[in-house]
Amino acid sequence: MAKNDNETVRENAPLRSLTPGERFRGYYLLKSAQTATASNGKPYLSFRLADNSGELPGKLWDYAGAITSLDAGQAVWASGRVESYQDQIQLAPDNLRLAEETDEIDLSRLVPTAPHDAQRMMAYVEQTLDSLADADYRGVCLKLLERHREDFACLPGAKAMHHAFLHGLLMHTATMMHQADFFARLYSDIVDRDLLLAAAFLHDIGKLAEFSTSPLGLVSDYSKEGRLLGHLFLGAEEAGQAARELGIPEEKRLLLQHLIVSHHGKAEFGAIQPPKCAEAELLTQIDMIDSRMEMFRTAYLDTPAGEFSRQRVWGLDNQYIYRPAADDPA
Amino acid sequence: MAKNDNETVRENAPLRSLTPGERFRGYYLLKSAQTATASNGKPYLSFRLADNSGELPGKLWDYAGAITSLDAGQAVWASGRVESYQDQIQLAPDNLRLAEETDEIDLSRLVPTAPHDAQRMMAYVEQTLDSLADADYRGVCLKLLERHREDFACLPGAKAMHHAFLHGLLMHTATMMHQADFFARLYSDIVDRDLLLAAAFLHDIGKLAEFSTSPLGLVSDYSKEGRLLGHLFLGAEEAGQAARELGIPEEKRLLLQHLIVSHHGKAEFGAIQPPKCAEAELLTQIDMIDSRMEMFRTAYLDTPAGEFSRQRVWGLDNQYIYRPAADDPA
Amino acid sequence: MAKNDNETVRENAPLRSLTPGERFRGYYLLKSAQTATASNGKPYLSFRLADNSGELPGKLWDYAGAITSLDAGQAVWASGRVESYQDQIQLAPDNLRLAEETDEIDLSRLVPTAPHDAQRMMAYVEQTLDSLADADYRGVCLKLLERHREDFACLPGAKAMHHAFLHGLLMHTATMMHQADFFARLYSDIVDRDLLLAAAFLHDIGKLAEFSTSPLGLVSDYSKEGRLLGHLFLGAEEAGQAARELGIPEEKRLLLQHLIVSHHGKAEFGAIQPPKCAEAELLTQIDMIDSRMEMFRTAYLDTPAGEFSRQRVWGLDNQYIYRPAADDPA
Amino acid sequence: MAKNDNETVRENAPLRSLTPGERFRGYYLLKSAQTATASNGKPYLSFRLADNSGELPGKLWDYAGAITSLDAGQAVWASGRVESYQDQIQLAPDNLRLAEETDEIDLSRLVPTAPHDAQRMMAYVEQTLDSLADADYRGVCLKLLERHREDFACLPGAKAMHHAFLHGLLMHTATMMHQADFFARLYSDIVDRDLLLAAAFLHDIGKLAEFSTSPLGLVSDYSKEGRLLGHLFLGAEEAGQAARELGIPEEKRLLLQHLIVSHHGKAEFGAIQPPKCAEAELLTQIDMIDSRMEMFRTAYLDTPAGEFSRQRVWGLDNQYIYRPAADDPA
Amino acid sequence: MAKNDNETVRENAPLRSLTPGERFRGYYLLKSAQTATASNGKPYLSFRLADNSGELPGKLWDYAGAITSLDAGQAVWASGRVESYQDQIQLAPDNLRLAEETDEIDLSRLVPTAPHDAQRMMAYVEQTLDSLADADYRGVCLKLLERHREDFACLPGAKAMHHAFLHGLLMHTATMMHQADFFARLYSDIVDRDLLLAAAFLHDIGKLAEFSTSPLGLVSDYSKEGRLLGHLFLGAEEAGQAARELGIPEEKRLLLQHLIVSHHGKAEFGAIQPPKCAEAELLTQIDMIDSRMEMFRTAYLDTPAGEFSRQRVWGLDNQYIYRPAADDPA
Amino acid sequence: MAKNDNETVRENAPLRSLTPGERFRGYYLLKSAQTATASNGKPYLSFRLADNSGELPGKLWDYAGAITSLDAGQAVWASGRVESYQDQIQLAPDNLRLAEETDEIDLSRLVPTAPHDAQRMMAYVEQTLDSLADADYRGVCLKLLERHREDFACLPGAKAMHHAFLHGLLMHTATMMHQADFFARLYSDIVDRDLLLAAAFLHDIGKLAEFSTSPLGLVSDYSKEGRLLGHLFLGAEEAGQAARELGIPEEKRLLLQHLIVSHHGKAEFGAIQPPKCAEAELLTQIDMIDSRMEMFRTAYLDTPAGEFSRQRVWGLDNQYIYRPAADDPA
Repeated sequence: MAKNDNETVRENAPLRSLTPGERFRGYYLLKSAQTATASNGKPYLSFRLADNSGELPGKLWDYAGAITSLDAGQAVWASGRVESYQDQIQLAPDNLRLAEETDEIDLSRLVPTAPHDAQRMMAYVEQTLDSLADADYRGVCLKLLERHREDFACLPGAKAMHHAFLHGLLMHTATMMHQADFFARLYSDIVDRDLLLAAAFLHDIGKLAEFSTSPLGLVSDYSKEGRLLGHLFLGAEEAGQAARELGIPEEKRLLLQHLIVSHHGKAEFGAIQPPKCAEAELLTQIDMIDSRMEMFRTAYLDTPAGEFSRQRVWGLDNQYIYRPAADDPA
Repeated sequence: MAKNDNETVRENAPLRSLTPGERFRGYYLLKSAQTATASNGKPYLSFRLADNSGELPGKLWDYAGAITSLDAGQAVWASGRVESYQDQIQLAPDNLRLAEETDEIDLSRLVPTAPHDAQRMMAYVEQTLDSLADADYRGVCLKLLERHREDFACLPGAKAMHHAFLHGLLMHTATMMHQADFFARLYSDIVDRDLLLAAAFLHDIGKLAEFSTSPLGLVSDYSKEGRLLGHLFLGAEEAGQAARELGIPEEKRLLLQHLIVSHHGKAEFGAIQPPKCAEAELLTQIDMIDSRMEMFRTAYLDTPAGEFSRQRVWGLDNQYIYRPAADDPA
Repeated sequence: MAKNDNETVRENAPLRSLTPGERFRGYYLLKSAQTATASNGKPYLSFRLADNSGELPGKLWDYAGAITSLDAGQAVWASGRVESYQDQIQLAPDNLRLAEETDEIDLSRLVPTAPHDAQRMMAYVEQTLDSLADADYRGVCLKLLERHREDFACLPGAKAMHHAFLHGLLMHTATMMHQADFFARLYSDIVDRDLLLAAAFLHDIGKLAEFSTSPLGLVSDYSKEGRLLGHLFLGAEEAGQAARELGIPEEKRLLLQHLIVSHHGKAEFGAIQPPKCAEAELLTQIDMIDSRMEMFRTAYLDTPAGEFSRQRVWGLDNQYIYRPAADDPA
Repeated sequence: MAKNDNETVRENAPLRSLTPGERFRGYYLLKSAQTATASNGKPYLSFRLADNSGELPGKLWDYAGAITSLDAGQAVWASGRVESYQDQIQLAPDNLRLAEETDEIDLSRLVPTAPHDAQRMMAYVEQTLDSLADADYRGVCLKLLERHREDFACLPGAKAMHHAFLHGLLMHTATMMHQADFFARLYSDIVDRDLLLAAAFLHDIGKLAEFSTSPLGLVSDYSKEGRLLGHLFLGAEEAGQAARELGIPEEKRLLLQHLIVSHHGKAEFGAIQPPKCAEAELLTQIDMIDSRMEMFRTAYLDTPAGEFSRQRVWGLDNQYIYRPAADDPA
Repeated sequence: MAKNDNETVRENAPLRSLTPGERFRGYYLLKSAQTATASNGKPYLSFRLADNSGELPGKLWDYAGAITSLDAGQAVWASGRVESYQDQIQLAPDNLRLAEETDEIDLSRLVPTAPHDAQRMMAYVEQTLDSLADADYRGVCLKLLERHREDFACLPGAKAMHHAFLHGLLMHTATMMHQADFFARLYSDIVDRDLLLAAAFLHDIGKLAEFSTSPLGLVSDYSKEGRLLGHLFLGAEEAGQAARELGIPEEKRLLLQHLIVSHHGKAEFGAIQPPKCAEAELLTQIDMIDSRMEMFRTAYLDTPAGEFSRQRVWGLDNQYIYRPAADDPA
Repeated sequence: MAKNDNETVRENAPLRSLTPGERFRGYYLLKSAQTATASNGKPYLSFRLADNSGELPGKLWDYAGAITSLDAGQAVWASGRVESYQDQIQLAPDNLRLAEETDEIDLSRLVPTAPHDAQRMMAYVEQTLDSLADADYRGVCLKLLERHREDFACLPGAKAMHHAFLHGLLMHTATMMHQADFFARLYSDIVDRDLLLAAAFLHDIGKLAEFSTSPLGLVSDYSKEGRLLGHLFLGAEEAGQAARELGIPEEKRLLLQHLIVSHHGKAEFGAIQPPKCAEAELLTQIDMIDSRMEMFRTAYLDTPAGEFSRQRVWGLDNQYIYRPAADDPA
């Protein structure tokens, strides 16, 4: 303990930067909370705090406050000490309370957010849709964009795994459209650019109905229709409905729906049909690429250059991944 | 050849009953046809005839007639001899022509048909739907029955595998509803009879759009939307649309759609979601039972009691199946 | 702690009904027990209590009593408080002792028991066996029923998973015979009722040798022959021996044995052969149906209507299952 | 044709040695036969002849003789020409008749036979069984050897795949016992020699009931009990019965049965249980080794040194296998 | 036959364009040849001709010429008739002889060749290698390019499946380098452009040793080292050797080798290790994309727009693939 | 606690022999260590000690000493009490310090070591290599033995699983050479003894580069090249290089490399190619046998005769394994 004698208090420090022995203070996101009774018969609170740098667990002993599991997803104010427990960092606050309306909080610090600017990404998506030569495909896209603009711009791309931050769906979609544009040129003899770009825009639109979101906009769970039908079905059903309302040719409606229902590639990964045309194949592949590159980016955050990740990475075939020493031109 | 000296000509004989050396004559279904050039430079016709007992291949040498592959699915008149070629029976007609309007043909002989009366099966289905206590589920079923009554009553249940005969879909559906009724009583504490029966009626409704049919009503191929989306998606999409039009509660619509998209059980068998409630589980199981029992029935036709099938049966896990000697009380 | 001030003591309350903060008192089954040393150097007892409603873990601090792991399976008397630890309910008794001979205990409360009356189920099984037209099949069944009557009537159907309660094997067998009777009528053209019913009765008879049981009749483990040979082998071996002693025709003996060794369907699920006749196929399917319906019943107990289970259900393909809101006619 | 002008007639030549253009004459085994009608309306006979060097197909045009498919398995006399058809060698006899009683035929030439002397292999098996220290294991083996001595000595080891020749089961068993003896010494600290050797002797004893054999002793098909129960079950059932009759300790009976039912290693390869003790593991492995080495031996017969096999070898993971150039010390 | 009365002779016509009944004449590649004896005892020649449009089988009756299977891979001159046999087109030449030195043949017509200009592709590869900032990676690439320049420029990319034409390996490599450049920019924060581009160039370099080629440059078979070690091993071994000779840092050598041995993604597809860094992941994905796009291109050649392929496409998950009607802006 | 009143202190006792309640004192290997903060705010040390009998976890409360996770792999001196925590034995030392240079420690007690004498095993390996008739194969082996003699003699055979003790690689190699010699005689008609024995010696030589080792010689982790390339690749690359330096015939080099890269049998177990010749097949099988026998030996250590292992054994198909009661001749 002696080595922490002259400790200072770190204010609103990123959770990922905290180390055992430090003192902390600031606003964080209450990710989860449970009240429990300790072996000495006294109640305590077990919880997890998060900000846009990561998450940490914590315990508050002899807790008689008002926070319960129902407060998950709220902002809180906390102050206390950082400790180490079984080789894991954990928070030991002296004080923990729900944030109040009068508190001045920079929400963008609390919630993980896409590393790119949402407005610019949105502008790119809209420009690209405007560039579609085929009015039918463009029409379906714009109709659904109009209907879901706000959710589409804000929703994370997933509950965990990859793009699980604000604007994650938008970022994932925009990056895929960028790739789609490249491949439509590269394989222009067998690929219809309009179909591929429209489907790249629409492919995850069913996630808007598949997710339940927390007060601060993160995905907290799957919705009932998400679990019973899945986002591939939901997206293709809604796109089909829009196509029928607009009266576009059946051939084009079927192709759009096919690209959506097949974009997970194989049945074992959730595809309703395997990809059966070149555009469907490409859509599957670029979805895979962007998902996995994002998982590498995340894994690299915790892996020093020239070393292997300390944990296996579930989404990357459960491998230890390697961050090359040579990837930085020295 | 000597042993066939005093041969008589069999008229409209079931194809399955013909044996090498016999002579035959009558009307049959032209299943397929190809013209070709023999090694001596002369053209010949290679074809398959079918009736409700089965199929046989045939060859007509030195053929200069008008029949081509485009005539597949038509009725023809043929006469000639039954031969054996590499342990397979084949037809060697002297004469083969398309049937004419003035020919009097008993079509029911040509096309395989369900072993039960279609009107009685249809009446059973309607009575059972009328017995549903839940007006919402009943409403969706009746709406789709009204829309597709004729196709639903006539269509085969599959292209091959099982129930590939006229009224096959109806027979399969009616038998499953009968089972559903039994299980709804047996497990009444956890099963909603109305949901299970409605979904039993609707589960294969998407096949009406998945199949292409021949002039005489058999399934000749899969449709474009059948291949790009599949009958689980198509059925659930249409049932969902009907439910929305009728304004039934969302919970019930979702359950109906879930039972339809999950009725193949596992992703590897085409299920869009695995069954997640008791009714979905039961629907999957009784679909499996009726399909496999029908395949046993078909396989037994070619298997003497007390023996194993001469061929592996693809749909029954590619096994040689056994027809017990004891299944007939002697 | 303040909120539990006026607490009353619940007597012999079902464990599933207890909530944190309550006080309890009564007789329970000691499912397991371990003595340990706490970090303060004092011994304590870690244990699990069970009754027919479920199980709960518990800890008794500063324990110097006589209970050890060897007492698992005995009845105990306990009194104390219900607590919460890491979102799990646990028992914190002040007092815990083995039940004595003079204690008056309602054993049916302690041990999970089939929801149907054992005598009535046994009567149904016997009547149905009497109804078999084939004296050979009936003879084998009655011979084994005579030999194992008491065990057959009492044993659970499994160690965990499904029907893991007293009379579980009987309940599972009786329900399957009920289904077998239905299907024998439905598919009477290809199914021998006597064979199917006899095999439904016999199919799990090998479990009598496969299980080790606790003093109160539950399955505590697998026996040595159970692990080295399995209940499919054991059942088919014993049924074959009985058939030989009775001198029934070899064809019938082989069929009975085949149905027993194939009733798990696929090699990966433990089947020694895949089902090769219609009766074997049906036996496999109805075993699957009754097992899975029982798992849904159990999972529904902990799942409110209109919600998904909080845990994945291992035996149901490791899915979150859904208990429909609509399954109760409101 | 010109190049075969001065051809001589090869008498009783091994079929494998015949080349297109040669003339042949002699006694062979009729493996199969089918009568058929050619496109010119005339009957012909399609057949396969075999001897201990291999098999060849053949055709006899304008055939009016008495041979039918029922004569398969008989010896025949044939003379004619060797031809080539679609890169396959085939026989074109002028003459083909069933062998008569008065014909002097060296049967050992017709039927493939183990490359080692049967009597010496039998003597090795008996000496090794006599060397078992454990009278219980020895007793079970000798009892079954006594019961099946002749069949055990003569039967092939399989229908195809490996050891499909007379005395094949004996050769496979003797070689495995030789290996078992080696490994029992190598791992003497964890392996019971008597158990391992007894099980090596017994492991395929169920094949005696699993196979149907042709008049000349080859395996022509699987028996009904072979298909419905399999040789692992049949062998373990019979060994168990013998053990009970001899009253050997239950532990030893269970171990013998366990080694028999587990010797295919994994469920997907037919094992009823996976190997659970060191002896069971070894038995599985040495069965695998001897089976695969025999398949290499067979494949090498058709593969020149320094080349790959022309066909994939089904039993060796469907690979092209390589016969090293270096395996012959030059 | 009547419809071909006034037939003209097509000279050097692409094989894919020939239809039954036409006459043809010209130079083609002899893909394979076999002499055989017909049922009338006369010899004939069975063969396949190829040009850069495809392949056709043929038969030449009563053939007494000099061509044997050893002439496969040579150019021949043929004239005769196009016929149809069992729904397959086949050639029936009157005349077939090996091409002679004095014949004037346009070889580029005979052998399938990449659709892009080889020199321009080669220039692109060299310019791109020159653009690598890292002299180590660049050095290894240039060293191997120098060593194998001619083979690398000419070899097909495969024996069948995809890019099985002259310059196929170059075309596949150049396209992948183009994609690599795009992705290195898109994911520049986690991807080392030099490593990715170098590995894209090297990834299939082992194929130069894995293939055996025919006289005209196509892949006729796998080499011995190709079958015993595989091109992933061979390429990584050679690249490693070159890296050691150049003395580049071990980290870079390991990364290059890792990208080569992992570029098939999963062990079941031949990867020696799974991809463990972002560059390895990308290399695997872009290899997959270019392979599959090429298979779509080939499959589309035989599939009319708006229809499904007539055959399942083995390399595309054995699916019927669909060529959209909408892919051509009308 | 009373029952431990008159306890004595056990000195340098094997960890596996310690039981709760005893006192201990002596030198052990520090397997791992972590400092942490307890819920009372005081630091403690969590660690694992090991010796050649096994491992035990431990905790030291109120720890202010110098030991950190960086000391893992060092020898320590410890004294204290053995306790039980949640049915697991754990150490509760009063005292724990790093061993000093002046301490007299029998290192062979601390580190698990092969049960056979290393010098005798090494002598066997060298004699056997000397017996190779083929100077080429012998040359490659001796060259690599010379280069790696010390590591080869000392290294464990694995990080965990099997042969994870000093000299484990040598013991595994020697035992496999012994088996190879046996099989080369048994199947001498198709097996080249020199090739098989050379590859048996070389098969795991790549592990010398694949492992990182701790100060006391155990495998602490995989090296970077081990993870990026694997020991099959590394071994075959090095053997190939040696073969090239010695100028041995290419055929022999390829065979050696093939046996090394294929010795894991199937791609899913890490084989780069499947075994394609008889020697490769045998090498795979005997590697499997020796690995699994060693796992049985280890599992038997914790399993009383006549009982099943208390835990599933991961490496043995995750089964409970059985140690026969009969394996000891009483």
